[in-house]
Amino acid sequence: MDAAAWRLHPDRVLPAEPGMRALARRILDATASLPIVSMHGHVDAAVLADDAAFTDPATLLVAPDHYIVRMLVSQATAPGPIRDAGVRSAADLGMGTGPVETDPRTIWRRFCAGWPALRGTPSRLWLEHVLVEVFGAPVAPSPATADLLFDHLSDRLAQPEYRPRALFERFGIELLATTDAATDTLEAHARLRADGWGDSVVPTFRPDALLEAGRSGWRDELDRLGALTGLDTGSYDGYLDALRARRRAFIAAGARATDHGHLSPDTTPLAELDARALFARARQAPLPDADARAFTAHMLFQMALMSADDGLVMQLHTGVLRDHDRPSAARHGHDIGFDIPVQTSFTRALRPVLEEFGHHPDFHLVVFTVDETAYSRELAPLAGAYPALRLGAPWWFLDAPEAMARFRAAVTETAGFGNTSGFVDDTRAFCSIPARHDLARRADASFLARLVAEHRLDLDEATDTAVALAYTLARDAYPAPAGTQVTA
Amino acid sequence: MDAAAWRLHPDRVLPAEPGMRALARRILDATASLPIVSMHGHVDAAVLADDAAFTDPATLLVAPDHYIVRMLVSQATAPGPIRDAGVRSAADLGMGTGPVETDPRTIWRRFCAGWPALRGTPSRLWLEHVLVEVFGAPVAPSPATADLLFDHLSDRLAQPEYRPRALFERFGIELLATTDAATDTLEAHARLRADGWGDSVVPTFRPDALLEAGRSGWRDELDRLGALTGLDTGSYDGYLDALRARRRAFIAAGARATDHGHLSPDTTPLAELDARALFARARQAPLPDADARAFTAHMLFQMALMSADDGLVMQLHTGVLRDHDRPSAARHGHDIGFDIPVQTSFTRALRPVLEEFGHHPDFHLVVFTVDETAYSRELAPLAGAYPALRLGAPWWFLDAPEAMARFRAAVTETAGFGNTSGFVDDTRAFCSIPARHDLARRADASFLARLVAEHRLDLDEATDTAVALAYTLARDAYPAPAGTQVTA
Amino acid sequence: MDAAAWRLHPDRVLPAEPGMRALARRILDATASLPIVSMHGHVDAAVLADDAAFTDPATLLVAPDHYIVRMLVSQATAPGPIRDAGVRSAADLGMGTGPVETDPRTIWRRFCAGWPALRGTPSRLWLEHVLVEVFGAPVAPSPATADLLFDHLSDRLAQPEYRPRALFERFGIELLATTDAATDTLEAHARLRADGWGDSVVPTFRPDALLEAGRSGWRDELDRLGALTGLDTGSYDGYLDALRARRRAFIAAGARATDHGHLSPDTTPLAELDARALFARARQAPLPDADARAFTAHMLFQMALMSADDGLVMQLHTGVLRDHDRPSAARHGHDIGFDIPVQTSFTRALRPVLEEFGHHPDFHLVVFTVDETAYSRELAPLAGAYPALRLGAPWWFLDAPEAMARFRAAVTETAGFGNTSGFVDDTRAFCSIPARHDLARRADASFLARLVAEHRLDLDEATDTAVALAYTLARDAYPAPAGTQVTA
Repeated sequence: MDAAAWRLHPDRVLPAEPGMRALARRILDATASLPIVSMHGHVDAAVLADDAAFTDPATLLVAPDHYIVRMLVSQATAPGPIRDAGVRSAADLGMGTGPVETDPRTIWRRFCAGWPALRGTPSRLWLEHVLVEVFGAPVAPSPATADLLFDHLSDRLAQPEYRPRALFERFGIELLATTDAATDTLEAHARLRADGWGDSVVPTFRPDALLEAGRSGWRDELDRLGALTGLDTGSYDGYLDALRARRRAFIAAGARATDHGHLSPDTTPLAELDARALFARARQAPLPDADARAFTAHMLFQMALMSADDGLVMQLHTGVLRDHDRPSAARHGHDIGFDIPVQTSFTRALRPVLEEFGHHPDFHLVVFTVDETAYSRELAPLAGAYPALRLGAPWWFLDAPEAMARFRAAVTETAGFGNTSGFVDDTRAFCSIPARHDLARRADASFLARLVAEHRLDLDEATDTAVALAYTLARDAYPAPAGTQVTA
Repeated sequence: MDAAAWRLHPDRVLPAEPGMRALARRILDATASLPIVSMHGHVDAAVLADDAAFTDPATLLVAPDHYIVRMLVSQATAPGPIRDAGVRSAADLGMGTGPVETDPRTIWRRFCAGWPALRGTPSRLWLEHVLVEVFGAPVAPSPATADLLFDHLSDRLAQPEYRPRALFERFGIELLATTDAATDTLEAHARLRADGWGDSVVPTFRPDALLEAGRSGWRDELDRLGALTGLDTGSYDGYLDALRARRRAFIAAGARATDHGHLSPDTTPLAELDARALFARARQAPLPDADARAFTAHMLFQMALMSADDGLVMQLHTGVLRDHDRPSAARHGHDIGFDIPVQTSFTRALRPVLEEFGHHPDFHLVVFTVDETAYSRELAPLAGAYPALRLGAPWWFLDAPEAMARFRAAVTETAGFGNTSGFVDDTRAFCSIPARHDLARRADASFLARLVAEHRLDLDEATDTAVALAYTLARDAYPAPAGTQVTA
Repeated sequence: MDAAAWRLHPDRVLPAEPGMRALARRILDATASLPIVSMHGHVDAAVLADDAAFTDPATLLVAPDHYIVRMLVSQATAPGPIRDAGVRSAADLGMGTGPVETDPRTIWRRFCAGWPALRGTPSRLWLEHVLVEVFGAPVAPSPATADLLFDHLSDRLAQPEYRPRALFERFGIELLATTDAATDTLEAHARLRADGWGDSVVPTFRPDALLEAGRSGWRDELDRLGALTGLDTGSYDGYLDALRARRRAFIAAGARATDHGHLSPDTTPLAELDARALFARARQAPLPDADARAFTAHMLFQMALMSADDGLVMQLHTGVLRDHDRPSAARHGHDIGFDIPVQTSFTRALRPVLEEFGHHPDFHLVVFTVDETAYSRELAPLAGAYPALRLGAPWWFLDAPEAMARFRAAVTETAGFGNTSGFVDDTRAFCSIPARHDLARRADASFLARLVAEHRLDLDEATDTAVALAYTLARDAYPAPAGTQVTA
């Protein structure tokens, strides 16, 4: 096997037309040496705090990746190699909370059998980058190469330069923000800080579970919050105080932002008395749906109020119905690929927060969507008007070349480039971080190259813009709150 | 007139950029010899059973084609050749149930006068293919060429090689599925089977009229169903039994699928008692709107249950408001171009069926939409997760090059290629079947060529995928139910 | 400074691929000598009636342009040159009804500092055209060139060939329609007519304020209408008569069309008695929201009825929530960039008018949208069926190259070219009229060039279509009502 056999084309994902490709290459080159600023990720901070070797290729690359798992499961009953390889559910690929396949080589073989199913998807592009650029894999996955690849990757993972911190530095990551429950003790982040990594890896404050008063576990979450803060979360005032306290703790640990994932982006506040009454009822029993939604909307407004006060950037990820397949969730757990978007409207939903804080110099709101119809209709007009609002990068299903091209085409004419907030990789898959940023930079270079080729922008403006999209905007969109202790 | 004057460019609808065009040509060539599998059509089985010569060009190509008729009618009051040619309504082109123009030559002249109105539409491309490739027409339609073309086409239609079965074989059709009311006797299919055509032409079970309990004709439909099956459709159990009986009859006649066209894709089942009560009320009088919708949703769930049991693929075509122009419908009948799409949401609507049967090895659901916003937001995420779900080809207004390109760009990154179900032509216009499949293959070759040119896919993968999109996926997405009698 | 340094590329906004660019150039050239027909604008007729010199560059180009102002304000709190230049709100750029910056040079410097924020927007392209083609500006705006440009432009504005009427003629405008409140006295138009400009500049009847019975100022508007017409607008019949009278006055002044801007496109009429009752209640106090919406819908139906009778083309611009930021509106006034689109559905909303008048030979409806999702789903199917309906050009946020390309791609396959109504510039910025038409012609030439390059259309058909899109369709879509007095 010739180890030089598998190379990625240096112009991959750039436009095919030769003139545009040459421009795109020059624009892309301007971003080549820029560090990665990853302001919204899902890597477990403990991975970097422990810095232990990754155990095996399947556990690292397949089992935690819901993009891969869902695609292979979606072909589980169709005639073909995936069904023949024995994939019936996420468990057969090592994912989920029930009994799962535990033999990494078996999982890896199934993944290799399913490789053709990833054609045309971003997972294919990310994995190619990971396999070739990170691990020097000699051949593409297939049933014939599965074992060879498994052994190759296992060999690499055993080497010290493939430990998490070594990879972090090799990837050129300047700043990585993790996502952490509001009730997380931030113990891993404390260890990182103690090791001098506190300016490189920071937490993000995610209080979703504390704001959903319609869920059965809400009261337990509040009890946990109370225990952690020593405040009385049985009262509405104590609940708000405890949220503020945790935000302060996150800020002290380096956090730049909060993150909010709810079905609706509604931010309508309740009258004070109504909010107190709902809270009191919720302490007794989970709220019915309409009340629960109203309470969450009210709390999102409170979060904006706190952000305007303490400087944490507010991130909204909405419009996804979680656990669409409830039987699968009951059997295999959450986050296994059955979260499905719904229609989402922002114009009226964000109005309360934008009218109140949209011009506030210290309030920053970054909004993400998986409903593309809102781009040109609502989000770009809003971001092109309110100083506080920035558009988040194409997220989740939209974190892919075609969707990224649609995003730029849909929002730029109304919101420009400066009202977007830089790329976020949103990934649990640590090794895919550079692949994802590379792909986004290629997509943006392609868009900009077309503007240059069509004489809508000068080349120097395009390279300057590419640097902003790849680096500066992400850095500037998430300023450190006033209370942050920067080590350096 | 030089008969060689009108030729179609062999690279039509392929990308203009020379590098991509060369790739697209190679990919397209890989599909050139593939037979046509047409799993959702509206050709009348009697046309093939009778195998009589088509009477004239207007009756064959204009009067039954609502794409052409609607476009010409839409220009009926604008200054120009269509108004001058005397087109006021569908009737002037021979379409509809009221009094219509009956002189084929007059209709044909009107059509030729309106030819420029079809610029940029798929009808233009289909008709060019039909005229040149099927009929060897020497010149494009225009007022000056109308009579010459009419005579040329009439001459051809009189020849035996232009009879339906001869054309069917010339077109390379391997399998043609017609669409048939659930209460159809399938007499034409029986004749075809007797002639040895039973494996080439199969029916599709369409029970819409039996599931819409808000329509005034519903009870008559049930009486017809009762008479045909000998079962008591006055009772809910008898009604369900009769539906099952007709499904068995269709399976025996070779059917692979059911087809369901309702305004909403809602599949929420009712509680047993509620369903029985609604049925009983509907037997007395048409249900009010909300109840009628709930009953249809319940029955779609029952159809899924029956499909999981008997193996008929379930096809959903929803989101169209039929007879938008009720005065025109009253005057000229249905299906004359006034069916207009509405916003459609699938995430919650399909949840009941997908939670129940989404992983069932013998349940297959193919969903079509005319609301493109659902592609990337809902349908691709659902199809990329549930094994039972396949996405139908771009349908109706979306069966066109630009819309097909948008479809692939919107769904592939999330659902891949394998979760789509192959092209369906959905046509009443028998002679356009090869034109439509050709156009779809060109659109897919163009999409794949771009992926190759951008180094996102290898050329051999692209040709392999093109074959799947053109043939294999359609064949595999509609497996024969266990009870099917295959003659061969 | 070399005055020859700043030139616009003659092929700007045409496709980059050389073959398509050559075709696009040939298609575009066919439209080069065509006059401008601008059937929907917001230039103040008094500007042309007075024909006074424009005072200064900032008052002409910056302060009245909500596209520019909103973009600069949207960057007011971000680190960068706009914040540093002192932009906090629209007032700092001279826009709004409160106290505003009044020094033109200060405003101009702020605009020049913000120039990079316009990258990728149509404002950038329009302004380049205005600066270079209209004013011969030697360099692009920047902090370093701000004063030089200000002086250059001021010098030009003092010259007689830069007065409004001279520019009008230089721009090659054949017909300009302004937008005028139904209660406007049309005094400026009378002066234009007296000067022989009556066939060049015509009013458009805009009765919005008279149809919104939920607004506090509605009764005052009716009183004004009564005073102007001498009719009793205290009664429903008098109100309708007064509207008819004003329509006649507008027709006498040359009007071709009405224009209607409401949140919803609903056109459902009320029963006669209900309408009378609502009117009577509204005379007492502003109607609550639901009633106000129903009344507006009813009145839109009445407007259609009057249009079918008097021949004024009916234009609908809907789906925008005005004054999203109510605090900013209170401080700085309306139309300052905070009007944000919402989801809009047309299929059911337009049904009453289309069923009643959709085939009427003298009724013409032009519908605009800022919700692109309706293009392929609803508007193209409707326009491709009903003779009376034409699709308006991409409007407001969608009046931009990418959005125009999406519009043609989305609607042409279903509605063709002939069911669109030509470009409208919709601008308050007089000097940008030729820039906007030029950009639209480039976008359409690019779309047509691709069809030719892909062998979907012949070149002569494409140039013929380009002429229609640039000129003929706009002229023909707005025929003069029977009562119009044409001077010539």
